[in-house]
Formats: sequence, structure tokens, C-alpha cells
Amino acid sequence: MSFTGEHHPGVQAPSAETRGFRLNHTMLRVKDPEKALAFYSRIFGMSVVRRLDFEEMGFSLYFLARLEQDDAVPEDAAQRTVWTFSQQGLLELTHNWGTEAQADFAYHDGNAEPQGFGHICFSVPDLDAAEAWFDANDVTFVKRSDQGKMKDVVFVKDADGYWIEVVQADRLAAMGD
Amino acid sequence: MSFTGEHHPGVQAPSAETRGFRLNHTMLRVKDPEKALAFYSRIFGMSVVRRLDFEEMGFSLYFLARLEQDDAVPEDAAQRTVWTFSQQGLLELTHNWGTEAQADFAYHDGNAEPQGFGHICFSVPDLDAAEAWFDANDVTFVKRSDQGKMKDVVFVKDADGYWIEVVQADRLAAMGD
Repeated sequence: MSFTGEHHPGVQAPSAETRGFRLNHTMLRVKDPEKALAFYSRIFGMSVVRRLDFEEMGFSLYFLARLEQDDAVPEDAAQRTVWTFSQQGLLELTHNWGTEAQADFAYHDGNAEPQGFGHICFSVPDLDAAEAWFDANDVTFVKRSDQGKMKDVVFVKDADGYWIEVVQADRLAAMGD
Repeated sequence: MSFTGEHHPGVQAPSAETRGFRLNHTMLRVKDPEKALAFYSRIFGMSVVRRLDFEEMGFSLYFLARLEQDDAVPEDAAQRTVWTFSQQGLLELTHNWGTEAQADFAYHDGNAEPQGFGHICFSVPDLDAAEAWFDANDVTFVKRSDQGKMKDVVFVKDADGYWIEVVQADRLAAMGD
């Protein structure tokens, strides 16, 4: 490993104590799991690798991954839980039971005030094809690739209104110049 | 690939149109990049793989990754931008210039009302060692592994107060049973 990171104020070299740490998932709360799962499976090709139910506390967790042909996902549920928590870059959707039936219920997207969380981002091989795919599926756009100051960057909304950035890596070489 | 995903209401099989889609990053806004970078590099061993500055709009983006020995990260900045947007499971920190100097400024963590985003999660090889590491670095705990209903799950706060879940995969085999 030649490149070990950029030097900016605050940055320290990784310590041995952090060896093996892995950024496993990002958790978003969703109002209606049927709608959220339809969106992420249909539009972004994600699979549910594990659902965990917590009856006493009234919620369920859905762990979503982009499965590849060579992913050796265990069939056994307990083994699959361990596999799930060993991965990198998953999406966890939390469903607090009953919210889907509340007409006026909605989660906060983090971009309206008060701000905090901004978005998740998918990298795609062909941004034009992805935009056509979103249009064919009536996905709501925040911005298209030809709009705004940041060309070649698309933002769409998921079923709960969370923002999803969509980019094609090799169209961003000059970004930030 | 034998296991292709659990079947739940709403779930569809991945379409060919989503081939090559990858969950690239999660974006969180941070008040003071020096404090945020100190936290994520020191406590979780993350490296800044690319900073992008947008002077006209007054913000900077920091892309953080857990670099492994065999990661072939390009030294060239433009190539490294393309590499960055090709990865899976990065963390993007957005700094809107000037917030670090505002005494009463703070971002919203998504767990207080209004709720939405919940947390990011790191998987670690040894949860007990990780807790000791957090204590040695005065990290703020939301809950320890022996507290609350969900044993073996730790939550700490980052420099902006966002929640970070920390788990050891092989201690969670019975989760949700």
C-alpha cells in the first residue's frame, strides 16, 4: 500500500487498535417496509440478506446488500446474521411497527432543517442509462445530471424522501478542480 | 450464488438494469472537519482518500475509507477521485465553511425528533477490546455492551454527536431470535 491517506488538520495515522474495523452499514428508518423494499430492490437491485424482528420492542430490521455472483451468503439464518455483520457497505432499514398505517407520519430527510445526515450514494457504470431507468420507473428526481452547478451528479428520492446521489465514477475525474 | 435474498412483501429480484450498481458512500455534515477527522482517523482508523473543495459554494467534501494493505489507491489526484467513486462503503463528511466558528451551531443526529437517519455501524474483531479502546480515548458512549435490551451492541457518539453502532459479528448469531 503506497497511498496511506491525505494529510489534513486533525488526521492521524491508523492505530493498531483499529485493525479489522469495517464500516458495516448505514441505518435509515422507513415508514412502510413494503414500499421501501420495493424501491431498493426494484430501482437499485438490492437484496434482503437478513430480517431481524424484535417483537417485545415492536420493530424489525432489514439488512440490504448488492449481492454479487461470487458472494458466499450462508443459507442458515444464524450464520447469515454473522455474515451480514461481517460485510462492508450495507443498508439497514428500520421499521417501527405501525407507522405505515399513520396517514400523517413521515421521517425527516436530514436536508430540510434541522440538517445533519445528507444522503447515501450509488456508483453506477452508466449514468445516462441509470437516469433512463429511473424515468422508466417514475423515480422522483431532486436534480438531473444536466441541472445545477454540479454536472454529472444525479440526486433522486427514495420511498421515504431520503436523498440518493447517483454518479458514474469516470465522469468525475475533474470534480473539485 | 445460491442465496439470492429473503422474500418479503415488496421485494423484487434484481433487474439487469441495475448491474454494477454499488453503494458507494454515506454523507454526514460535520461542524468542524479538524475534530471530525481526528475522531474518525484516531478512533476508527479511517484515512482521507480524497478532499474536494468547492470554493464558489463554500464547502469541502472529505471521503474517508478503511484502507487495507492490498488497496491499490492511485497517487494521482484525478485518478484517485475516480477510484474513490468506484468503491463500496465509504464515509463522506461535508464541511460548510464557517460552521466551526459558530459557538451555538450543531448538526441534528436524526435520533432526537424529528427522526430519520439513525446511525452508521462498524464491525470489529473484538468488541471488548474496542470498548477499552474507546474508554482509553474518552469516547462518549450512548450504551455499552452490557447495558439495555440489546446485549453485545455498543453505541458511541462521533465528534458531531452522530451515533455509531459497534458490533462483533460472531457475538450476534442469536440476534432477533
